[in-house]
Amino acid sequence: MPPPLLVSFIAGDAGAWTIDQLTPVRGEALALAARLDVLEGAGSAPAPDAIWQLRGTTSNLRYTLRKEAAALAAVQEGLGRAQATCAALIPIRKNEAWWALAQDERRAILEEQSRHVALGMDYLPAVARRLHHCRDIGEPFDFLTWFEYAPQDANRFDDLVGALRETPEWNYVDREVDIRLSRAA
Amino acid sequence: MPPPLLVSFIAGDAGAWTIDQLTPVRGEALALAARLDVLEGAGSAPAPDAIWQLRGTTSNLRYTLRKEAAALAAVQEGLGRAQATCAALIPIRKNEAWWALAQDERRAILEEQSRHVALGMDYLPAVARRLHHCRDIGEPFDFLTWFEYAPQDANRFDDLVGALRETPEWNYVDREVDIRLSRAA
Repeated sequence: MPPPLLVSFIAGDAGAWTIDQLTPVRGEALALAARLDVLEGAGSAPAPDAIWQLRGTTSNLRYTLRKEAAALAAVQEGLGRAQATCAALIPIRKNEAWWALAQDERRAILEEQSRHVALGMDYLPAVARRLHHCRDIGEPFDFLTWFEYAPQDANRFDDLVGALRETPEWNYVDREVDIRLSRAA
Repeated sequence: MPPPLLVSFIAGDAGAWTIDQLTPVRGEALALAARLDVLEGAGSAPAPDAIWQLRGTTSNLRYTLRKEAAALAAVQEGLGRAQATCAALIPIRKNEAWWALAQDERRAILEEQSRHVALGMDYLPAVARRLHHCRDIGEPFDFLTWFEYAPQDANRFDDLVGALRETPEWNYVDREVDIRLSRAA
């Protein structure tokens, strides 16, 4: 479990990732931009030329049980794999009803009712994932999830996000944007 | 459950609270100062005259179950009571072993082994409490807990923090400072 890492996602004219598609799934969209820069650590200063900039921090596990974390760790792979030239950035905000729930209520919706962790397991190791939290730092979204996968796994990735959007957990999502990206191999 | 609130605790020559005592319980101390200012919201800018400044945000419940939250809500009182002229600010940092634990492991230590929520219940409504999170925003501590109580409850407050420090949860605390304050009635 690495220490919290601040990550800035900066949309504009520069960056390693080309934005191929930007789809507002629920609520307000984000502006279109050509490229995305992903800055880790000290990239928290506002980028003057950015079309938009979102920030979040990695953190400790919030819902995952030890047995689930062990199962995930046994098969998941990290970011930056050579063949993973496709990425998705999915900013999500949950509504006030979600945040008013107690820990056991949120866990029950997330996993026992929605199988969020179990669904993700089915797509490992093809889809690598890093979750960034941003509700507590005054950002417009609550979570920024970053996914990386190879082009041949793009359809499977669509299946994963489609399945998640059908779950009871997603009844609490009031804003979601789906951004697909690619980079040179 | 109010939205996350950024709170700055600024030690220096100004502020509503007089610092009566500052005790390093574990690890590095904080510098002595005469007074403490508590700024809510936009008080995030560094205070140029501060001796030290700590920031944290209120957040959603991380461990508390619905039945526990309901029991707490039925008896707890808020900050700012006229008779609560005593306060304590207790910044705490937990070690890497704590943060590497999964959610169920941390919950078991916090409550089933340490009775953290249940212990606090015994001191309601005398002791009002607000928890601020700061691990994910690059601060030197992980939590800043602010307590308010009347002078006649000061001994009971000592009992509460003494009991918490004897728990298995506190084996994971690697820095703690205990700051006692008072204000004019």
